Amino acid sequence: MTTMIDPQDLTGASYSALLYALAGATVFLLLGVSWVERGWKLVVGLAAIAMLVGACQAYDSRAAWVAAKSVSVAYPYAGWIISMPVQVLTLFFLAGRGGKVSQALFWRLAVVSILMVLVRYLGDAKLMAPTLAFLIGVAFWLYILGELYFGQMDEAVATGGGDALRRGYFWLRIVATVGWAIYPLGSFIVSFTSAVDDGRLSLAYNLAEFVNLIAFGLAVLATAMASADNDRVAAR
Amino acid sequence: MTTMIDPQDLTGASYSALLYALAGATVFLLLGVSWVERGWKLVVGLAAIAMLVGACQAYDSRAAWVAAKSVSVAYPYAGWIISMPVQVLTLFFLAGRGGKVSQALFWRLAVVSILMVLVRYLGDAKLMAPTLAFLIGVAFWLYILGELYFGQMDEAVATGGGDALRRGYFWLRIVATVGWAIYPLGSFIVSFTSAVDDGRLSLAYNLAEFVNLIAFGLAVLATAMASADNDRVAAR
Amino acid sequence: MTTMIDPQDLTGASYSALLYALAGATVFLLLGVSWVERGWKLVVGLAAIAMLVGACQAYDSRAAWVAAKSVSVAYPYAGWIISMPVQVLTLFFLAGRGGKVSQALFWRLAVVSILMVLVRYLGDAKLMAPTLAFLIGVAFWLYILGELYFGQMDEAVATGGGDALRRGYFWLRIVATVGWAIYPLGSFIVSFTSAVDDGRLSLAYNLAEFVNLIAFGLAVLATAMASADNDRVAAR
Amino acid sequence: MTTMIDPQDLTGASYSALLYALAGATVFLLLGVSWVERGWKLVVGLAAIAMLVGACQAYDSRAAWVAAKSVSVAYPYAGWIISMPVQVLTLFFLAGRGGKVSQALFWRLAVVSILMVLVRYLGDAKLMAPTLAFLIGVAFWLYILGELYFGQMDEAVATGGGDALRRGYFWLRIVATVGWAIYPLGSFIVSFTSAVDDGRLSLAYNLAEFVNLIAFGLAVLATAMASADNDRVAAR
Amino acid sequence: MTTMIDPQDLTGASYSALLYALAGATVFLLLGVSWVERGWKLVVGLAAIAMLVGACQAYDSRAAWVAAKSVSVAYPYAGWIISMPVQVLTLFFLAGRGGKVSQALFWRLAVVSILMVLVRYLGDAKLMAPTLAFLIGVAFWLYILGELYFGQMDEAVATGGGDALRRGYFWLRIVATVGWAIYPLGSFIVSFTSAVDDGRLSLAYNLAEFVNLIAFGLAVLATAMASADNDRVAAR
Repeated sequence: MTTMIDPQDLTGASYSALLYALAGATVFLLLGVSWVERGWKLVVGLAAIAMLVGACQAYDSRAAWVAAKSVSVAYPYAGWIISMPVQVLTLFFLAGRGGKVSQALFWRLAVVSILMVLVRYLGDAKLMAPTLAFLIGVAFWLYILGELYFGQMDEAVATGGGDALRRGYFWLRIVATVGWAIYPLGSFIVSFTSAVDDGRLSLAYNLAEFVNLIAFGLAVLATAMASADNDRVAAR
Repeated sequence: MTTMIDPQDLTGASYSALLYALAGATVFLLLGVSWVERGWKLVVGLAAIAMLVGACQAYDSRAAWVAAKSVSVAYPYAGWIISMPVQVLTLFFLAGRGGKVSQALFWRLAVVSILMVLVRYLGDAKLMAPTLAFLIGVAFWLYILGELYFGQMDEAVATGGGDALRRGYFWLRIVATVGWAIYPLGSFIVSFTSAVDDGRLSLAYNLAEFVNLIAFGLAVLATAMASADNDRVAAR
Repeated sequence: MTTMIDPQDLTGASYSALLYALAGATVFLLLGVSWVERGWKLVVGLAAIAMLVGACQAYDSRAAWVAAKSVSVAYPYAGWIISMPVQVLTLFFLAGRGGKVSQALFWRLAVVSILMVLVRYLGDAKLMAPTLAFLIGVAFWLYILGELYFGQMDEAVATGGGDALRRGYFWLRIVATVGWAIYPLGSFIVSFTSAVDDGRLSLAYNLAEFVNLIAFGLAVLATAMASADNDRVAAR
Repeated sequence: MTTMIDPQDLTGASYSALLYALAGATVFLLLGVSWVERGWKLVVGLAAIAMLVGACQAYDSRAAWVAAKSVSVAYPYAGWIISMPVQVLTLFFLAGRGGKVSQALFWRLAVVSILMVLVRYLGDAKLMAPTLAFLIGVAFWLYILGELYFGQMDEAVATGGGDALRRGYFWLRIVATVGWAIYPLGSFIVSFTSAVDDGRLSLAYNLAEFVNLIAFGLAVLATAMASADNDRVAAR
Repeated sequence: MTTMIDPQDLTGASYSALLYALAGATVFLLLGVSWVERGWKLVVGLAAIAMLVGACQAYDSRAAWVAAKSVSVAYPYAGWIISMPVQVLTLFFLAGRGGKVSQALFWRLAVVSILMVLVRYLGDAKLMAPTLAFLIGVAFWLYILGELYFGQMDEAVATGGGDALRRGYFWLRIVATVGWAIYPLGSFIVSFTSAVDDGRLSLAYNLAEFVNLIAFGLAVLATAMASADNDRVAAR
């Protein structure tokens, strides 16, 4: 602990801010589980778990950064391999609030999202040919996006869901499309260039996590709360 | 841990006292979430999260202080960039208990309060021209005060809120005006003078946090509890 | 952590026992908040927070003791400046269960109890003339005792409270009179003599905390639970 | 903490991922306890406790791995000797949702599952003849499997349970058969060969824990939630 | 943390297993508080607190053992002086579910059980003549057993309690008779012989804690849950 965060160490400061934000957001979403209706508790609970995993990852990564001013790729991927599948399944159960989604889709999404993170890690850690890993990782990501845009989930939301659910699903899908684009981009940079030092990439990842984890989680809670109001109005 | 807090180390003692107070206040407000009515849970929950972030910040800052008898500006700003926007949004949702406040205002407040802390940090860390950063930071702060005094929030509270809400909003606005004045003041001192050593400024910040975080949070809880009593009386 | 608590280190052992007891009592009182009636939740919650602060203080003090076999006065006072005002306000709200107590009294008690601990600390740390600090500290304590024995709180309890509340208030006041006498006594010894080494005074403080924090907190919970039974009988 | 997880340290990364997953799953199942019906709370609670123990074990094992790049067998067995009996008893109480299961069976399962882990540990640590320990360990495991397939539990589920319970029991039994086969296999390898280094075996164990602890726990929660829906349909 | 638990270090492994088991059991009993009836919450809550204190003690003792391969007597006694009185008072309140038990008995049990642990510690730490301490400790223990077998508590359970309470009280009393016999035995060995090294005695204590703390706590929860079922049947 003798090594401190310097005043100008933007990466270190971003790790601290991310950790605090994720810790706060986790507690907030755990509170939120008791505010939403029975059917939404699972969805909000999963979003809270993704945030909790992100907080653990940020805690460990910050310790590594403070000690060595560099974070090995093992740190973020150990968190992403848990938090990203949890987020994908959050979307699955959220879509399920609109209409029926098949159990087979659950398993496909779970397996593909785990494999997506795994191959990216293997590529970044040079445990697998980076080009191949990059391509497979992108393919898996596209598959998930395909399911989100053209699959059962989109259908369930479009046909059975209320306005609030539709709006929430729309924005969450944007996060999964635009926000998550940073991960293959980062992979690409790590694997194929040597131009970016570790600190700047970590900083970019940390800023992205604010959108990808925290905004995502809060949007899920907002959707759950707005949906309940929606249903109440509709029931009149 | 061989370096201890000396008997006469007022700054170290103030970090400890602040940490204990914030930890206690966080747990107290989390308890309080279950004491207030459904519509107030979000408001009190947000105030609790701001306090939780403050407690994490105090914990890390104290460790830095004990180890080095100096705390880099990265420490407080990593906390403030989370806790201050959360506090501003607490006020937004609190005002929303009185009447309608627009979603656009939510986003403006969120963005401006994050930017306000960010430019202050960049200025204090000399990552940006201090004078410019100071001026922008003050401008953003004035914008928030403007919204609080002359915007939708004031209107919502003045027209739709009960006595308890009006009184609570009045005092919380005072905190945001008088209490928060220490941050640009501190920035000013750090950026333009070299007269004050780190310990005395940290001590001043710590004392200010007792008002800005803890009194703020407790006032939110008190407003929520008094509002409920108010409404009950009004409903008779 | 290579320095351990020796078998015969009574002070070290008392820090451990106090820490365990406070941790247990904190969780117990937090559980207790859900056992008592709505109006008592605030009172029991405050007592739990005082205990939580005491537990944090004991944790830090023990670490300091184990590392250096001496604890600077900054450690206990950092806890007391939070826990003692919280306890005084616990008594204020407890008395409020009997009848009306004025808001002005709330602020007087809050300010006086904070100042009481502050001047004692300044005196013990030689940051202020010890004799003056000692006298002011005693004067503040006597003021609080005066309020407890002859002020609004006593009146509210005597006129409006049930048997259980009266009995509870009686015993809690005894703690504030007899148990809290150790703090000025300790101050006196630290300031005016050099006969007692740190370990023995810390041991005495730790034993006193069992009464002043734990017995106090449990008495508050017992009063709250007995009061509810009382009211139920009276309502028949 | 100067020793970090290297980018290519698959074992270290797997410890981190397992720890995050177990922490998340523990909190998720603790949330889940409040989602299921009264009779299922004990079952889901036990599954959560098994996961909590697994998380503690993963935390300690990771620290050992990071410090020494090797984990003594004392680490996993200290966790398994608690978590595996808890899981076996989870199955016992889950089967009890279908029909009556005798108290004698409870004690037999508790004792046998503790002894099963104990002899494996004694064998792996060479505190007992490895061949004998291996054989006794396998015998105890077969006894538990016998109870699961041909004993009272199977009968209770088959006769009294709904569809959801039957399906859940089926899959949980598969985990106890296929997933748990890694423990005697690992014992066998540790005791009778010297071909595998510590890291690869730990990695295999960690991957197995994802199924044996996390999938197991989530399947218990899913069974509890589906059973409630089942009963509701049946009650119509 | 560079010193690890060796594969063959049975004492170290038993500390880990005890810690995991106590952590799990604490959370389980805290969950259990919400499963039992109002009148039983206090009893189960106290049992949970005893377990929490035991977990803290195991955590600290394990750290001491790992660092020095020896644990000074200050460690276990710091925990026992809190957990044993809490357990005795758990029995007092449990017996009170059967019929009236006097407040005087509460105070006698509290004081005697604290003194019992205190004199044992003073004897083991050679701060008091070991023979005298041993004899006084045994006398206090016999007094508690006398109250359990022939006092008000036995009468309250025998006359007013249901079957479940009687059975639970019977087994808990057995734990206090047979299980607790290890403490004077250990005292005796420490004080009057030099034949046993620290590790083996710690191991024996740890194994005893599984019965004395965990089995005790789970039996309290089982009694509370069975009693509720009992009363429900009786009420028909």
